[in-house]
Amino acid sequence: MKIFDDFLLRFVAYDQIAFEAFKALLSKEMLQIPKKDFIFKDGDKIDQLYFIVEGDLRGFYINDKGEEITSDILFAPLLFTDNYAYTNKITTRLNLQTLTTVSLYTIKLTELEIMITEYQTINSFFRLYFSFLFNVNNQRRLSYIYETSEERYLNLIKQHPKVIENIPQHYIASYLGIQPETLSRIRKKIMKNN
Amino acid sequence: MKIFDDFLLRFVAYDQIAFEAFKALLSKEMLQIPKKDFIFKDGDKIDQLYFIVEGDLRGFYINDKGEEITSDILFAPLLFTDNYAYTNKITTRLNLQTLTTVSLYTIKLTELEIMITEYQTINSFFRLYFSFLFNVNNQRRLSYIYETSEERYLNLIKQHPKVIENIPQHYIASYLGIQPETLSRIRKKIMKNN
Repeated sequence: MKIFDDFLLRFVAYDQIAFEAFKALLSKEMLQIPKKDFIFKDGDKIDQLYFIVEGDLRGFYINDKGEEITSDILFAPLLFTDNYAYTNKITTRLNLQTLTTVSLYTIKLTELEIMITEYQTINSFFRLYFSFLFNVNNQRRLSYIYETSEERYLNLIKQHPKVIENIPQHYIASYLGIQPETLSRIRKKIMKNN
Repeated sequence: MKIFDDFLLRFVAYDQIAFEAFKALLSKEMLQIPKKDFIFKDGDKIDQLYFIVEGDLRGFYINDKGEEITSDILFAPLLFTDNYAYTNKITTRLNLQTLTTVSLYTIKLTELEIMITEYQTINSFFRLYFSFLFNVNNQRRLSYIYETSEERYLNLIKQHPKVIENIPQHYIASYLGIQPETLSRIRKKIMKNN
């Protein structure tokens, strides 16, 4: 499966035996999840990693006022799970929802843990992948110090031009930590300047 | 060095050969950095990892208004560097300042990278350490969704009781993303209730 190999190759050099062993852990069937469905929900136990082949998703939390707060906007291809819930053996508080039809494979995390210790290329892959995720997350946290809402929005659409096409604006506003009206003003200003 | 072994043992099982190889990369001398000095500053090239043996530090950024924003409050023992600047080969924007006298060893990152590929226990250590850092960072980001300023402050002093003794209050307020006056109100309320 070329898309999976290509994903691994973003972090490690080709290693046929290790890559094949990793691919052997993918679910036999590629699953099709309809738009607006859930991969997992607040309260679920996390025991799988998801390789998202195609489609867009969002992660959201419910705050104590009962409001949905979009914490993640995700685009295929990617590997995703709630790593915090899994490593701490607690149920997740995250809701992972499809925004389009999504194609994915599942990987059992208990099987993956064994394989990581057997194939050092996979061990390195996850070390480098976690380093990458840590950096992305840290930069995102720091963007609230450095950048204005407008700069954060411009960076988001620069990195992910599909955002404008497919993602409802109120999810983007929530993700940027601003009111929908503020996002609407920013978009009008940008369109006027172009 | 027991403190270094103990730190590694929080993430991986004992492996004498790998642990000794890792310790051989530590600078020969343990350095003593005076209070209010800098480990590195905005604009510096990052080529070392720091093993902080004793002391407290803070990381801060300068925003576009010229204000210091405290992004990290750090307590020994820990391993620290600006991983984003190092992996992206850019100069850092972070200022890492000592809040007390700090004792530390330095590790050259180019030497560490070679060693990681030779000792799989160290490869695993960094995979698990990055997973841990990713989780800590992600939870901190999400605490701004879940929690009030008061809850964030209570969690901080629960996890790090030394915070109240050693860290100037305006750094803590900045770290929590609130005004010093708000932190002062929260502290008075908590003292009144105890």
